[in-house]
Amino acid sequence: MKKKKMVPAVTITRLPVYLRYLNELARKGIPVISSHDLAELAGGNGPQLRKDLSFLGELGTRGVGYDVKELAHQISKFMGLDREQSVAIIGAGKLGTALLRYKGFAEKGFKIRAILDTDLQKVGKKINDLLINDVENLERVIKEEKIEICIITTPASEAQKVADRIVSCGISTILNFAPVSLKVSDEIVVRQIDLSVELQILSFYKTLTG
Amino acid sequence: MKKKKMVPAVTITRLPVYLRYLNELARKGIPVISSHDLAELAGGNGPQLRKDLSFLGELGTRGVGYDVKELAHQISKFMGLDREQSVAIIGAGKLGTALLRYKGFAEKGFKIRAILDTDLQKVGKKINDLLINDVENLERVIKEEKIEICIITTPASEAQKVADRIVSCGISTILNFAPVSLKVSDEIVVRQIDLSVELQILSFYKTLTG
Repeated sequence: MKKKKMVPAVTITRLPVYLRYLNELARKGIPVISSHDLAELAGGNGPQLRKDLSFLGELGTRGVGYDVKELAHQISKFMGLDREQSVAIIGAGKLGTALLRYKGFAEKGFKIRAILDTDLQKVGKKINDLLINDVENLERVIKEEKIEICIITTPASEAQKVADRIVSCGISTILNFAPVSLKVSDEIVVRQIDLSVELQILSFYKTLTG
Repeated sequence: MKKKKMVPAVTITRLPVYLRYLNELARKGIPVISSHDLAELAGGNGPQLRKDLSFLGELGTRGVGYDVKELAHQISKFMGLDREQSVAIIGAGKLGTALLRYKGFAEKGFKIRAILDTDLQKVGKKINDLLINDVENLERVIKEEKIEICIITTPASEAQKVADRIVSCGISTILNFAPVSLKVSDEIVVRQIDLSVELQILSFYKTLTG
């Protein structure tokens, strides 16, 4: 599917948001929604939503709207969310532990199958029935647990080394919480969440109103 | 400073990254860096970096580069990071607790002065020497602790109500971890981190290579 590579990055960030609201509507038993109403829920507008959904093919009926369950299914399939995916967390500190316990991942089909750390005081202990594994075993764990996505929550100084090892195992998708820009080749997709940067951005906008 | 309102949003997200590397260079005792080298560290390129920094005024010396400490100081000042800022966390669950313990905030001048929850089992308990306060007291706490930025880590169902109360206290900057799009007026700046969305985005990119 060649067209799929041309989907704009902003569309990819909005599709999960539509999906979240569609699932919520389905739970409430609402069968159909207009593009305007769904866009409003997601904090956007109708034309933008229709453009976003156009990448998925012909969807919805003019003047009627979208079948809620069908659209949720189509977005899920498009994004590869129609099956469970195995995730590993590298770094069993405060943040890694909080992520392991975060219910939202499992609800979306992301199963945390491994958590690893370098600290031998932690290795062998259990969090949520999952044994903390030694980072030494990273390659073996990725293979055995069929890991597809890795979350890095190590200190900044360790993150690049860990990323290199992950990539060499054939993993191409990384969620990085370490406050460092990872250097990886172009075909590897890294999403970075830097919690301090988010506050610093807010700080800037506060200077405009102050 | 009218020009400041015209700084592109992407520039604002990159300035803290430059600042992080500048502080690292300063710690290593490196006095000067070229735009090319700094851009490389931050995962960008020279022209982009020079464009970003142009919003701060005349900086650096052609053929020499930037004075590391001076540029760090200028970015800090520009972003309002040259003084401590008081932050409240609403929601003392796993994520709220992990954020409270996150060292990166204090290092950047963000002082968590309050954490609040609705759960009376939690209220009155201490995390990191900070007493968990009742959300009932939100308005009073924001005033007494001179809170400037709020972090919402409540369940999705509570987030809008909390946001409305925060905004009515005059807070204009919110970091929202609840998986819901907050409806706020245009002058309020919300940065949203939805951890599941990040994994869903990675999932999409994995379908391209699979």
